[in-house]
Amino acid sequence: MISKKELIDTHNRIKHVIHATPILTSTTLNELTECELFFKCENFQKVGAFKFRGASNAVLQLSPKELENGVVTHSSGNHAQALALAAKMAQAKCFVVMPSNSPKVKIDAVKGYGAKVTLCPSTQKDREEFTRNIISKTGAIFIHPYNDERIIAGQSTCAKELIETIPDLDIIIAPVGGGGLLSGTILSAQYFSPKTLVYAAEPQGADDAYRSLISGKRILSHTPNSIADGLLTTLGDKTWPIIKNGIEKIIVVSDQEIKHALQLILERMKIIVEPSSATVLAAVMKNKKEFSGKKIGLIISGGNYQIKI
Amino acid sequence: MISKKELIDTHNRIKHVIHATPILTSTTLNELTECELFFKCENFQKVGAFKFRGASNAVLQLSPKELENGVVTHSSGNHAQALALAAKMAQAKCFVVMPSNSPKVKIDAVKGYGAKVTLCPSTQKDREEFTRNIISKTGAIFIHPYNDERIIAGQSTCAKELIETIPDLDIIIAPVGGGGLLSGTILSAQYFSPKTLVYAAEPQGADDAYRSLISGKRILSHTPNSIADGLLTTLGDKTWPIIKNGIEKIIVVSDQEIKHALQLILERMKIIVEPSSATVLAAVMKNKKEFSGKKIGLIISGGNYQIKI
Repeated sequence: MISKKELIDTHNRIKHVIHATPILTSTTLNELTECELFFKCENFQKVGAFKFRGASNAVLQLSPKELENGVVTHSSGNHAQALALAAKMAQAKCFVVMPSNSPKVKIDAVKGYGAKVTLCPSTQKDREEFTRNIISKTGAIFIHPYNDERIIAGQSTCAKELIETIPDLDIIIAPVGGGGLLSGTILSAQYFSPKTLVYAAEPQGADDAYRSLISGKRILSHTPNSIADGLLTTLGDKTWPIIKNGIEKIIVVSDQEIKHALQLILERMKIIVEPSSATVLAAVMKNKKEFSGKKIGLIISGGNYQIKI
Repeated sequence: MISKKELIDTHNRIKHVIHATPILTSTTLNELTECELFFKCENFQKVGAFKFRGASNAVLQLSPKELENGVVTHSSGNHAQALALAAKMAQAKCFVVMPSNSPKVKIDAVKGYGAKVTLCPSTQKDREEFTRNIISKTGAIFIHPYNDERIIAGQSTCAKELIETIPDLDIIIAPVGGGGLLSGTILSAQYFSPKTLVYAAEPQGADDAYRSLISGKRILSHTPNSIADGLLTTLGDKTWPIIKNGIEKIIVVSDQEIKHALQLILERMKIIVEPSSATVLAAVMKNKKEFSGKKIGLIISGGNYQIKI
């Protein structure tokens, strides 16, 4: 169990390297939803996503000796960039295994932070095998994208900052993929604002967390398909128990609902967010009556979304 | 001549209705340009553009008797929305003459703020004739988009806020179209930060201000063509003398350079800005050597840019 002290220590550990991201409001979206919404904007975080919090927390806990061999992960998404930057700032090597069909822009971004990228076939088995090979050759330390207490504690600092700035929230809604952000959010609410309920928003095409919660048993197999490409992973054995015990409700939203919410955020707030982040506003709009009049924190997880001009 | 006291009074007059917009920085863009850049983000202003400052300043100076007949303007752009909202907030009527080929989304936005829209053929002559007709029928008061001292004073508050937050800027760069924002910026620099030089950025396809400055004589005729659709108008007889006397330099940028700067802002800063706003970063990037090491305020004029998702 991650303690309250651990969350406080984590925040102190990473405070000087992360951005304390802004919390934005929108009169139009408040009127539209009939709530008071507070958007915690991790799209303005380093590397454009909350993932940098967890990655720095993991890297900053490694000893100089451990750092010598560097760190390694497999990820095609924001965790890859986050770990690459966290390693660079610690002057450590970073190895990233990415599926060979990853978009070139993502591979280039990871390389841009100085990481060594190894491309592999796009199966889970290959990713893991390639990663094991790198570990055995280099001695690099594996940092999982979400199923790791250091990562969960790191991600918890996002809700902690939100709670510290807006202390009397009725609800916080976070998106859920592997559950690192969600479980961190739950812990921060429990320790720092016990009256605040935590909800999750999940894409219909990758609703393993919702189905796990309904059945009471962590569901591992699914064939995800959603525009919210940051939320396609399944819960881990470290994130699941925290979510199971602490979540109020998971709201499932369709890609159509996500797109509509995304369009509203872009047009009305003039900020760029990922489809994964728009799930939280989509959840509010889908359940307007339930949320009406409430003070709600929405975690905008990231802004790595390619805009065509 | 607009006095220092008038600018201070203006700011006090509109402070409670405008947003004091945030000033953002970007490590990546600082590294890329080798400057220290401060982005004054009017894309987060009400109606998504600085135009709301001038429009509210004009409306708030009308007497209850004058407000009875409402206000009128001709504009297909941000001034139309700005005046419509300013009038709505003062519980006054607003009439807007718009060319019949204006995008539906812009017409709807103006109507959304409660203004009565009259469509006209898209010539300057027709716009003016339709506007005169409305004035003679309704007695509404005409508020020009930029060639009006109340508008210039209103727009000056943007640079005033920037200077008050970042007091030791070497340079401020504003985009120039009709010159309302630019002349207001020049006045604020002269009165509140006399050491700060003011530059302008202008699209190559609408470079009347540049040509006016070179020839020393205000150029009226041009056939503008640029992606920066907020900057297609020519200088007015009230904005030109202020610009002529106070500008350090006008930097002309191509549509290609504007698009490149726009892409950088969207990708790196995760904010949505109009092409017109990207001209100021394009100007810095085009003249890297001249600006190197300098502390530069960039006025991001607005964020009304349609994103396809």
